[in-house]
Amino acid sequence: MVARVAYAAALCRQELIESMTSHSEPGQLQAIARVVSPYGEKFGVPRQPGLVAAAKGYIEMLPGFDRIEAFEGIEGFSHLWAIFGFHACGGQQRLRVRPPRLGGNEERGVFATRSPFRPNNLGLSVLRFEGLEQTENHLRVAVSGLDMVDGTPVYDIKPYVPYTDSIPQAQGGFAASAPEHRLAVVFSAQADRQLSAMPEAAHMRELVEQTLALDPRPAYRRDDGERLYGMQLAGHDVRWRVRGGRAEVEAIAPLG
Amino acid sequence: MVARVAYAAALCRQELIESMTSHSEPGQLQAIARVVSPYGEKFGVPRQPGLVAAAKGYIEMLPGFDRIEAFEGIEGFSHLWAIFGFHACGGQQRLRVRPPRLGGNEERGVFATRSPFRPNNLGLSVLRFEGLEQTENHLRVAVSGLDMVDGTPVYDIKPYVPYTDSIPQAQGGFAASAPEHRLAVVFSAQADRQLSAMPEAAHMRELVEQTLALDPRPAYRRDDGERLYGMQLAGHDVRWRVRGGRAEVEAIAPLG
Repeated sequence: MVARVAYAAALCRQELIESMTSHSEPGQLQAIARVVSPYGEKFGVPRQPGLVAAAKGYIEMLPGFDRIEAFEGIEGFSHLWAIFGFHACGGQQRLRVRPPRLGGNEERGVFATRSPFRPNNLGLSVLRFEGLEQTENHLRVAVSGLDMVDGTPVYDIKPYVPYTDSIPQAQGGFAASAPEHRLAVVFSAQADRQLSAMPEAAHMRELVEQTLALDPRPAYRRDDGERLYGMQLAGHDVRWRVRGGRAEVEAIAPLG
Repeated sequence: MVARVAYAAALCRQELIESMTSHSEPGQLQAIARVVSPYGEKFGVPRQPGLVAAAKGYIEMLPGFDRIEAFEGIEGFSHLWAIFGFHACGGQQRLRVRPPRLGGNEERGVFATRSPFRPNNLGLSVLRFEGLEQTENHLRVAVSGLDMVDGTPVYDIKPYVPYTDSIPQAQGGFAASAPEHRLAVVFSAQADRQLSAMPEAAHMRELVEQTLALDPRPAYRRDDGERLYGMQLAGHDVRWRVRGGRAEVEAIAPLG
């Protein structure tokens, strides 16, 4: 007799620890964590992870998943995958989208893009792993290079395994290299004073600089004069204009 | 007045095409496709994608998603991500697992592994994109390097974007390099005859060789004598033993 059935069962058993089983309905997702991010709203969020190294934050584990033993071994990895829900655009799903990378007026099929407006609204980001932090009631995973809005639901965390995940020679279609459009960022006297008064002034300056350098303006509005923009960043209301190829930060005030 | 609200709305509008909107409940996953894979059961499936180049198959789009316009632009990419459901192990979810890579008897936290027995049972694989195939009633994405069981539900397809997804210098913990354990594979006279009679003999031989070279036996059973193993591969029942460091294929018979 061939040993197929017995071995299929044994193969499962091998990876399991019987005392910690649970089951879920197929197709029903449960958030295991929430993202704590400096980006308080969708506008201004980097379009891919790793573009803003200063975008530090946390994946805060939810009850049932806030157990340090679920992370044993993670210290050997430098990067993590998060599979998450694009919750900030109202569950809208399309088959055709207009990637900002192409100027916002060319269509592509959604499965050829990383657009959030996709079937199931699932996102995938690789983040730098900065350590585990355990406090009395919480377990959180410190990460950097965030491209997720504060409050984003996370459905899975996986280690980045370079021998299988890293394919440097892959062809990247219309996004073959990192976006090149970078603005110089300057601060008004007022913004400078406001920055200097903050406890983490140097970090905040870096975060504002790296975020605005990517030019978060909608691609199709980039020739729209010297309009004042605002975004929520690390609990502050950042206001800036783009003038002569530079982002000029007018003010950085704490959010009410 | 600062232009935040107007721009947040505009940013959404920019990427959308109004005629193709749909919405879904948060946390409710809908399969957009099913995998057509040579691996008919969990036993024998490579433990990561890309290990068996001959593992060719399809992501067969389901109704509503079987539209060629949803893929426009994909031809510029060489690799794709599939986010899928590990459906073959009964929805079992653990916080601690025993990775086969560590011999099957050392525990790790599930979030430090790629184990299928994880919260939400979501899998993530990068596959080589081999083209789109459209027939009368079907649209399917040809892929290779599969590590998924036939019938696996797929929840998302994304292009692999090397500038953000590829991190060759990442540290890979206990899976820092591809598995090194490779068996030589030999065929009995009977298996050779059976292979030769197949229409795609050369491809099947390659698929059997590459799959068995990875030694699919459970790690903790590798010293268990010359037991006969069986797996379903490309519609065939493949039977083999491991003897003296070689996988000896005894028979390859079509499945009834």
